[in-house]
Amino acid sequence: MNADIKNDVLLNDLKLRVHKVQNAMKNLRLDALLVQSNLNNLYFAGRIFAGCTYVPCEGQPLFFVRRGAFPAGDNVFSIYKPEQIPGILHDLGLASPEHLGLESAELSQRNWQRLAALWPDAESLDASGVLASVRSVKTPYEIALMKKTGSRHAAVVARFASVYEQGMTDQQWMIEMVHLMLKAGSLGIFRVAGESMEAFMGTVLAGDNGAAVSPYDFALGGAGIDPSYPVGQSGVRIEPGMTVMADVAANFYGYLTDCTRVYALGGVSARARDAHRLSIDIHETIAQRAIPGTPCSELYNLAVAMAERAGFAECFMGAERKARFVGHGTGLVINEQPVLGARSQEILQAGMCIAVEPKFVIAGVGAVGPEDTYLVTDKGLRSLTPLDREIIELQEI
Amino acid sequence: MNADIKNDVLLNDLKLRVHKVQNAMKNLRLDALLVQSNLNNLYFAGRIFAGCTYVPCEGQPLFFVRRGAFPAGDNVFSIYKPEQIPGILHDLGLASPEHLGLESAELSQRNWQRLAALWPDAESLDASGVLASVRSVKTPYEIALMKKTGSRHAAVVARFASVYEQGMTDQQWMIEMVHLMLKAGSLGIFRVAGESMEAFMGTVLAGDNGAAVSPYDFALGGAGIDPSYPVGQSGVRIEPGMTVMADVAANFYGYLTDCTRVYALGGVSARARDAHRLSIDIHETIAQRAIPGTPCSELYNLAVAMAERAGFAECFMGAERKARFVGHGTGLVINEQPVLGARSQEILQAGMCIAVEPKFVIAGVGAVGPEDTYLVTDKGLRSLTPLDREIIELQEI
Repeated sequence: MNADIKNDVLLNDLKLRVHKVQNAMKNLRLDALLVQSNLNNLYFAGRIFAGCTYVPCEGQPLFFVRRGAFPAGDNVFSIYKPEQIPGILHDLGLASPEHLGLESAELSQRNWQRLAALWPDAESLDASGVLASVRSVKTPYEIALMKKTGSRHAAVVARFASVYEQGMTDQQWMIEMVHLMLKAGSLGIFRVAGESMEAFMGTVLAGDNGAAVSPYDFALGGAGIDPSYPVGQSGVRIEPGMTVMADVAANFYGYLTDCTRVYALGGVSARARDAHRLSIDIHETIAQRAIPGTPCSELYNLAVAMAERAGFAECFMGAERKARFVGHGTGLVINEQPVLGARSQEILQAGMCIAVEPKFVIAGVGAVGPEDTYLVTDKGLRSLTPLDREIIELQEI
Repeated sequence: MNADIKNDVLLNDLKLRVHKVQNAMKNLRLDALLVQSNLNNLYFAGRIFAGCTYVPCEGQPLFFVRRGAFPAGDNVFSIYKPEQIPGILHDLGLASPEHLGLESAELSQRNWQRLAALWPDAESLDASGVLASVRSVKTPYEIALMKKTGSRHAAVVARFASVYEQGMTDQQWMIEMVHLMLKAGSLGIFRVAGESMEAFMGTVLAGDNGAAVSPYDFALGGAGIDPSYPVGQSGVRIEPGMTVMADVAANFYGYLTDCTRVYALGGVSARARDAHRLSIDIHETIAQRAIPGTPCSELYNLAVAMAERAGFAECFMGAERKARFVGHGTGLVINEQPVLGARSQEILQAGMCIAVEPKFVIAGVGAVGPEDTYLVTDKGLRSLTPLDREIIELQEI
């Protein structure tokens, strides 16, 4: 792609994002937003920088850059501390905000206090919710990046089985998957919303480790190999009769896609195969039903009903501890809105990107059920990670 | 190590951590701390869990576990939301706190508000500073983990040159370093304090990319390969005459050590060699002078004075944009206290673990200067990452 064209396309897309946010701000009667997180700065600027983005309810955003490369522009200001921002706005003849939106979910309490003090007379209100809601519906440029990420992601997942070697542990195989993903161009960095969430690229769950409870709010957990990072692979050797669930995310341009495939060494039990088949059926049913206007809770309830009808309710989305969702938005963070859960109030919209992951945990075998990232279109879901969904047989050498 | 012995040693060490924190709380007249971050939960429990640690100013801490594996104990309570905590304390006959310490740096504003509302009559005060200060002086168990991490880290760094192949870019080589580090047992996850900081295991800076300004507050930056993660390797091919600075962290048990080595393909300029030699001299001088009681600012000023005297002031710790420190604490996060900077108020104490990184950027060549992690002892610094510090010649194949 020609760099200048790309830049123009990106610049127009950034304007669209601001426009969407400004529309949402009007309903909340916010005069301005001041964001400082990497996440939302990246959304508004198309790049990470240290500093703040100021979005008035009308007009162009202002970028206050403390550190980092940033193209010059008449709305770009170099600062060394955020306390300079009110004076710069004043010099530009812009009114001080009376109702200021700040990021309650992304800013530490300390930094919230600091930014809220910039205009002592303004009321500081939470803007994290509205930003997450706007981010959940992707712009054309974002959709293009999601499609390209999904396509590159799928191409790497298709090679996971080729780096399995007999006798490997889940951890050893995970390392080779990570190696493939990085060599294919993934940036490695894994962004997740919520200050207690964290992950290193993904998880690989072999056998009964699929049922282990983790402190993190992922669909399935895994015990991990150290109590300082108790999630994912547990160091167990992959044995015949087990399933191995590989859920390694991809991030080539700042946007994350999610894709899980299930592997087995030799045959697995009929019950595990049936549960996996059921997961594929749930995918196909949801993909048809998930048209714009559908409540997200309906998709979760549909999946639960299918699991119940088939006699797999007790092992759907975990064993001892169950995840109460069957999918989630993804984008700049792996856990964007919406949540496909029973208590979700969200309604599907065209342009949302969602990962669907109906997973089952079969005692004595392991986790089954694929995961794909989809784009919500007027005709239902379109997979961005198109790969065969059957259990993949690992080759003994 | 026998698992039971290890567990007893850890349990006694956890008691020591609580004791240290309780001593510090007395000076601040805090009745209790309630922490919720992964970082400080890991400090108090030796493991990550979802939930809260409540530390009264006297007596044992209480662990409120929402999710995650946690050994049973008479001070361990299963909860589904933090709003249950006051009732449990009441049932135990414990007084409600009047002066409550919360984490202003680790909690989002949203979660701070939620925890502060648990006891509406209590005054909520910042406890992040005191916790960081206590964490900066390691306990015996932590020192043992830091030593073991540094030793394993150094053994991996010693193999970096062996995975270089002619024609590689900085990114390609970095991926092979990461692969070695993971195969050696590193967990991959990289924890850093501050909600705008993030990193994927480390950076590899080749040639003039050593001078590129990054938004992140690391000693040197690098442009990165995508604007969504603008730090580290830029995708440049490694050429004769360049230096390559490899700064890949290690994390085997939740504790991070920092170690940087410099490589070159063929000779580099005399000025680059001189600057590297000067960096080694600064290491040796600081290692002798850094005894307990030394102000951290003194060590920075000493390094700056040595750089000035040798005519390298203008390229010390960056070119266009300089880092204003020459070292930093490390431990559960890569940027623990203290900071070895001009404005640092901190005083060195035995048991601190600090990374020292006097780095220079030579135009047309690249970054030079090694980095090592040290333990502060009564006799000065003891390296935890003991490796030869000279520039390492890469072999053309």
